[in-house]
Amino acid sequence: MRSKLSPEELVERALAGHVPAIARLLSRAESGGSEARKALDRLYRHTGKAHIVGVTGVPGSGKSTLVSKLARAVRASGRKVGILAVDPSSPFSGGSILGDRIRMTDLVSDPGIYIRSMATRGALGGLARGALDAVDVLDAAGYEMVLIETVGVGQDEIDVVRAAHTTVVVSAPGLGDEIQAIKAGVLEIADIHVVSKCDRSDADKTIADLKTMMGMGAFLTKTPSWRVPVLATSSAKDQGIVELADAIDAHRASLEQSGEIAMRCRRIAERRMLRAADEILRARFEQHRGGKLSVLTDRIISRDLTPHAAAKELLHEIHMETTRELFNSVDTES
Amino acid sequence: MRSKLSPEELVERALAGHVPAIARLLSRAESGGSEARKALDRLYRHTGKAHIVGVTGVPGSGKSTLVSKLARAVRASGRKVGILAVDPSSPFSGGSILGDRIRMTDLVSDPGIYIRSMATRGALGGLARGALDAVDVLDAAGYEMVLIETVGVGQDEIDVVRAAHTTVVVSAPGLGDEIQAIKAGVLEIADIHVVSKCDRSDADKTIADLKTMMGMGAFLTKTPSWRVPVLATSSAKDQGIVELADAIDAHRASLEQSGEIAMRCRRIAERRMLRAADEILRARFEQHRGGKLSVLTDRIISRDLTPHAAAKELLHEIHMETTRELFNSVDTES
Repeated sequence: MRSKLSPEELVERALAGHVPAIARLLSRAESGGSEARKALDRLYRHTGKAHIVGVTGVPGSGKSTLVSKLARAVRASGRKVGILAVDPSSPFSGGSILGDRIRMTDLVSDPGIYIRSMATRGALGGLARGALDAVDVLDAAGYEMVLIETVGVGQDEIDVVRAAHTTVVVSAPGLGDEIQAIKAGVLEIADIHVVSKCDRSDADKTIADLKTMMGMGAFLTKTPSWRVPVLATSSAKDQGIVELADAIDAHRASLEQSGEIAMRCRRIAERRMLRAADEILRARFEQHRGGKLSVLTDRIISRDLTPHAAAKELLHEIHMETTRELFNSVDTES
Repeated sequence: MRSKLSPEELVERALAGHVPAIARLLSRAESGGSEARKALDRLYRHTGKAHIVGVTGVPGSGKSTLVSKLARAVRASGRKVGILAVDPSSPFSGGSILGDRIRMTDLVSDPGIYIRSMATRGALGGLARGALDAVDVLDAAGYEMVLIETVGVGQDEIDVVRAAHTTVVVSAPGLGDEIQAIKAGVLEIADIHVVSKCDRSDADKTIADLKTMMGMGAFLTKTPSWRVPVLATSSAKDQGIVELADAIDAHRASLEQSGEIAMRCRRIAERRMLRAADEILRARFEQHRGGKLSVLTDRIISRDLTPHAAAKELLHEIHMETTRELFNSVDTES
């Protein structure tokens, strides 16, 4: 793998399940750029087979440990599982700079489980795009379930979670009201609720609170055919993990039976298109630094133009290049 | 204020400090749309006077209380202060659904302090744009300092904080390592560090940890002429609040003296332009729902096009409208 491989060769190897090739493609997905684009474009037609599961919850909810347990439970059914940690506080992503890192050596030693962390610091802008490209790589490479672990706050991370077929929201007992409140925005996106650490004495209160909130109708079910369950798990005592894996499979089956899966795939495709458009815009923005961008910025600073009016001019400016590239890239995308 | 006011009249009144007009403009800033745009475009030339201060930190760090104390300290110097809470867990924004709400009645009764919360649930996409437009309204209306309170996670909220001249990052003792780690991404954006609740016995450890991290060079100062201080405050005992207000003023003075303020205003203008471009794109995206967008989405789902290639086509499609609107809007923006 030291030699320079063409995007075609790299994709070929990744599709065959060659781990170093997968790792290299994931690195490219993370960093972005036109080289990465070529490989990812080529790979894209092989995606669409994996069941993509988003697992979200505040730091301290124990979702990293839960994800590792869940991966093992799914693996036991013979499926290959990919884990993508885009959570800055996850031990997978090494973000827990002050806390203990959990070494998931038993997971790493199983070739049917692939763990990848995405750096969130320093490259926040490209986080969602990079994460979704990474899901494509794992999907195309034959991982039948991809678990995306993310802390449930912020537009980027909510976008990542919304790109999942099934979304699991993890709550934990005793994190305190203020910490729980941060989650309010993601409660409604849950297909499955999990209360982790259910071996704790105060878990029943959290389960009851959650059921009360749901019963109040504040968080309506998204799919008429699916009743959002509240599951209790304990990673420490290995409780509820298999039930969670079963619920995820049941949710997928329900999406298929009701036909809801088509709407969900549609929503995911739309969001990804918008994200990509944002990304193109940001790249163009960088290209114009010093030229047109600088002139427009000056006019914003002098209050001659509003940011909104300047943005319109910028969009106008970048159009020609985008059009040119569109036509140039047609033959390479076949 | 019940009668229908033109955007011109509304802006005129807001500039004169008329509170109901300010409130109405803030509502428009939050909801967006072309009516709001007209008023905000008109108002924009009157902005650029306020000192914009971002205050960020995890839920439970006590930043809401700190912000209210800080506002009073700044108000004591005779300046008008605006507070903008874009934090879903802030008692100002009413987001602390499970916790106690702090009633800031003494603040509300002072006409020199204006408090506004921005809803973050349901409208996450427009949060940053809406918040920055709201800052413009308060700035133009004569509030000499605008405090933006936000939880420091996610692209949107980091964008809001980065639009500030001075950024204060609040840490608190005893929130736990995992909770602190979430903050790792925002530590480096601090101009001033605050350790709140310094009356607690474990505050010294948090202060020492923070200084160690800074000393390790992990978080370099952004401005050569400014050494990022670590301040200890206690809202309960009214300690360190005046010192914080002084440090904020000193930071502003340092920006002015070093000339760094120009670079910072430039960065803010650039970010706002990009944000506005994103916003225009999202609006156009909605307009194409059912037409071109639907066709492109189908092609993404069938793996005929990548999201990236579809985004390029979409950008091409929206160009004509943007250009048309740009020319149509020239006369209304004079």
